[in-house]
Amino acid sequence: MRDVRDLPIGVFDSGIGGLTVLRALRRALPGEAFLYLGDTARVPYGTKSPATVRRYALEAADELSSRGIKALVVACNTASSLAQADLVALDRFPVFGVVEAGARAAIAVTQAHRVGVIGTRSTIESGAYARTLEALDPGVEVHARACPLLVPLAEEGWEETDVARSVCEQYLADLRVAHVDTLILGCTHYPLLKAAIAATMGPEVRLVDSAAETAAEVARSVRALRLARRLPPDRPCKFLVTDDRLTFIRVGTRLLGEAIQDVESIELEHRLELAEPADGARHARVS
Amino acid sequence: MRDVRDLPIGVFDSGIGGLTVLRALRRALPGEAFLYLGDTARVPYGTKSPATVRRYALEAADELSSRGIKALVVACNTASSLAQADLVALDRFPVFGVVEAGARAAIAVTQAHRVGVIGTRSTIESGAYARTLEALDPGVEVHARACPLLVPLAEEGWEETDVARSVCEQYLADLRVAHVDTLILGCTHYPLLKAAIAATMGPEVRLVDSAAETAAEVARSVRALRLARRLPPDRPCKFLVTDDRLTFIRVGTRLLGEAIQDVESIELEHRLELAEPADGARHARVS
Repeated sequence: MRDVRDLPIGVFDSGIGGLTVLRALRRALPGEAFLYLGDTARVPYGTKSPATVRRYALEAADELSSRGIKALVVACNTASSLAQADLVALDRFPVFGVVEAGARAAIAVTQAHRVGVIGTRSTIESGAYARTLEALDPGVEVHARACPLLVPLAEEGWEETDVARSVCEQYLADLRVAHVDTLILGCTHYPLLKAAIAATMGPEVRLVDSAAETAAEVARSVRALRLARRLPPDRPCKFLVTDDRLTFIRVGTRLLGEAIQDVESIELEHRLELAEPADGARHARVS
Repeated sequence: MRDVRDLPIGVFDSGIGGLTVLRALRRALPGEAFLYLGDTARVPYGTKSPATVRRYALEAADELSSRGIKALVVACNTASSLAQADLVALDRFPVFGVVEAGARAAIAVTQAHRVGVIGTRSTIESGAYARTLEALDPGVEVHARACPLLVPLAEEGWEETDVARSVCEQYLADLRVAHVDTLILGCTHYPLLKAAIAATMGPEVRLVDSAAETAAEVARSVRALRLARRLPPDRPCKFLVTDDRLTFIRVGTRLLGEAIQDVESIELEHRLELAEPADGARHARVS
């Protein structure tokens, strides 16, 4: 029988962005094994409805659960914003989300009690960061801004261009006027644009990288819960993707900062029965 | 028994972008009815693998076919690039794709026989525009460029900003050096950025709008095939979407240029049995 401590830590993301979180986890927990699930066929979650994102997150958690994990890290900010409560309610393993870790770190560093948050449209519209920040510090003033262009900008590799600078200026102008002293990078891709964001916000604003904060929190909990793996794993990372493996390997290697090898293609659609039918016709003819 | 002439024309897109094609169709064929399917839960197709895009397109065609259409317009450039042959092979109705219509129009106007094409990464990597252009004019020189930032830019409503101009300059520099005299806007969103693209390319370059060209071609064929509707429809447009209806209505109205009313939420995932299993585990537990 397998010891729960020797199970991998599950990491779930809508696509490849969560590899920046896995990278931080690898650094914080070098003796652990990780099972990463990237729902690359259905990426991005940031433009989808809350109900759809919740269903996708539960399908992913069920897949990881059936393979055996000792903890689940929700690396996708959108899923963490919208589906954290549903995943915790499964009560199968400890669940760590980037939103909570990022919010906690921001409250720890802000002195002005004015915190900015940037993310995808869904993350910002969900209000999850604002709610979590206000629960931790009822006096905090939160300024949130959706920045849909930053993900494709990072994926283009245009971090150092004039375009990156003018996009950041356009998006961050209101946050500068609001004099936030702390800014949460509420999307896994944004650490790639840290230099352009820092240059726009100025040296007095602290940037909170949710990936690094999440990794630190997971490392603390693994120790506190006595869940540390006993022997280092032979293969520390395995990857599950729902779309093409080659694209994932090609683009993902840059984000992870190490070679991606053990990649398996899986199917998640309709893994779980839908609790309630969509309004309108449904003609499932499924194998 | 329904007369085939009174059936609507089906329009299929990965999301809301195809509404610019529907807008052009409404103008070219004011007496027709349209059934629009936007696969908004799985948008964008432009970052997905060819096999996945083909499966999605066949699922959409099957849904439209079961509801009754007299012709199918593939408004999504990615689907038109990758799945046109599969849809024609169904042999259920005439199929019109934006790629063929755009390519034909470009060959008709180019004098230098140097044509530029811009689109999503999948559209450009598929090589479909280049193949179609070369089949029509073996002497043509094709310069293609993927422009992933243009869709989010158009959806932000930033068409008139400095950002739009600097993004266009970055993307189009090589096409200017290549001295193309014709540029195909190979993505449904790009007509929204026509002014910025035209300003970058200069007045001597002709822009080909695939949406308008497709509508003109469909109108000609409906007449030639004697498929014109006999009486104007009561409700000219019905919409099927796979994700949230409200977002579709909110964002779509600007693209269509008229109110969006009759929207039904549907389910497409796994509508068709998969011909071949993906490599790796499959644990379908479907209702």
